Amino acid sequence: MRIGVIGTGAVGGYYGALLVKNGLDVHFLLNSDFEHVRDNGLLVESKDGDFELGTVNAYSCSEDMPKCDVVIVALKTTHNDLLKSMLPDTIKKNGIIVMLQNGLNIEKDVAEIIPSATVVGGLCFLCSNKIGPGHIRHLDYGSIRLGQYQKNEQAAGVTKELKLISDIFCNAGIPIHIADNLGKARWEKLVWNMGFNGSTVILNATTDRIMKNPSSCAMVNEIMLEVIQAARICGYDIDDSFSEIMVTATKQMVDYSPSMKLDYEAGRPLEIENIYWRPIRAAEKNGYDMKKSRILAYQLDFIDRINRQNI
Amino acid sequence: MRIGVIGTGAVGGYYGALLVKNGLDVHFLLNSDFEHVRDNGLLVESKDGDFELGTVNAYSCSEDMPKCDVVIVALKTTHNDLLKSMLPDTIKKNGIIVMLQNGLNIEKDVAEIIPSATVVGGLCFLCSNKIGPGHIRHLDYGSIRLGQYQKNEQAAGVTKELKLISDIFCNAGIPIHIADNLGKARWEKLVWNMGFNGSTVILNATTDRIMKNPSSCAMVNEIMLEVIQAARICGYDIDDSFSEIMVTATKQMVDYSPSMKLDYEAGRPLEIENIYWRPIRAAEKNGYDMKKSRILAYQLDFIDRINRQNI
Repeated sequence: MRIGVIGTGAVGGYYGALLVKNGLDVHFLLNSDFEHVRDNGLLVESKDGDFELGTVNAYSCSEDMPKCDVVIVALKTTHNDLLKSMLPDTIKKNGIIVMLQNGLNIEKDVAEIIPSATVVGGLCFLCSNKIGPGHIRHLDYGSIRLGQYQKNEQAAGVTKELKLISDIFCNAGIPIHIADNLGKARWEKLVWNMGFNGSTVILNATTDRIMKNPSSCAMVNEIMLEVIQAARICGYDIDDSFSEIMVTATKQMVDYSPSMKLDYEAGRPLEIENIYWRPIRAAEKNGYDMKKSRILAYQLDFIDRINRQNI
Repeated sequence: MRIGVIGTGAVGGYYGALLVKNGLDVHFLLNSDFEHVRDNGLLVESKDGDFELGTVNAYSCSEDMPKCDVVIVALKTTHNDLLKSMLPDTIKKNGIIVMLQNGLNIEKDVAEIIPSATVVGGLCFLCSNKIGPGHIRHLDYGSIRLGQYQKNEQAAGVTKELKLISDIFCNAGIPIHIADNLGKARWEKLVWNMGFNGSTVILNATTDRIMKNPSSCAMVNEIMLEVIQAARICGYDIDDSFSEIMVTATKQMVDYSPSMKLDYEAGRPLEIENIYWRPIRAAEKNGYDMKKSRILAYQLDFIDRINRQNI
């Protein structure tokens, strides 16, 4: 079994390295870090123990990669336009694509690119950063919720492909939870992401500081409840109490800069389209106006443009 | 006729200086600038022509001031708790109080402090900053909309007291517009203030930059429409097209940092309570949830606390 990793950063680098460590045949597609990783491999500093992979299969171009049985996509969604050329180069016929990204409808997009593939969505509950070329720092958590994509967006249950992916990750020591209903799982993830990702950028604060201030805490809570309401209107039954679970989990988390905050600090484009606008449009299509979330999305658009000096 | 000015900053300093220049007997209550203004008077740099007042009647304490026929209140609303002691010291029985402040229900507050007084509200369309002690820079505009406060919050029309105040300002060359209905005028002012004041702080940008970016422009427009809707629900009929008038006016304005942005930059407390929370609560009382504005208010609360290192 050959596994490809597209996007070797905080997410793809971390999970891919764990798979290599477990003896699997993993092939990494890289961009800016290519030469460094080709020459030096990957270094993972983890709360569960540091480890180094001196040599890994590294590629700078998808055409150079061998075709894989499983392709893990861990790119930033802001680069998803590249998948149109990368996926046909890297996935075997009837292969499995695992989407380790945030946002909505990303599985649908890749299913349209490679109709023969099975598409599995993975929601990572992971605090990790890439702190240098091929150098990943894993701060906390690490579990993945896996669910299979179905065209009709209904619960797919546990298929043999989903079981296979689950086993691959489990055997590498990665905690896996199976989501019957990928759509619902994605909306549940959005509850946290839409609440916190944008807020940490707009308020230039870590999660800890946001939780400690009653106003920002109230704001995040209202956003989360709006996302829950939107999910329900889109057909995914999430209870309001889920926002409290998220608040409690966040309070127990290490003080954290979510991926969007790290992207902002690094001057990278922000995942506003996938984390905010897609859910906002999905809710709108079902007649629900996510007024509060839209304010954040507008603000993020502005901040993102200024940040990339592109106004 | 003796006129008192409480709060000698960008607003009170500017208008008060124009009244002095027109030969009126004006008495200024000051705080941090007291010694400088006592010794050096006031300096106004204005697009309409600079002028200097070498000596003015300056006081550091309301108890030292003579009682006045007219008291102009141009404090930041964040200091309005001081009015409880300052107004009884400075206003003659049956005097007129002119409230040159932003926000909602400020006339009601002072009418409760001095029940015998006539209270006039003034909405300043003024771009001016205090750039040093007793030193005001007038950038653009300068007109005031004056309306009389009535307990029942209905249109008061043009009373003799309102006419008197209007004449005093007009004679000093200040463009005056009379508002039949002060409540409606205040909400109209809030349309701009709630749209722009907070946004310039949250996005750390001047009005010009906000107007040039389609996302921030859309955000401000949605906020303004929400304020218009809230005004209507509170009984003040403002047409949706008013937001377009505000957008057009802002595009024609000089590139501007509203007062809240200047307060932010100077580390002063922000007028969130009067410009955001009071209208939000007024709308709420009438069954309307200003969801979008509340997001801005929460964010401003957070930013304000961080800005004053008070978290």
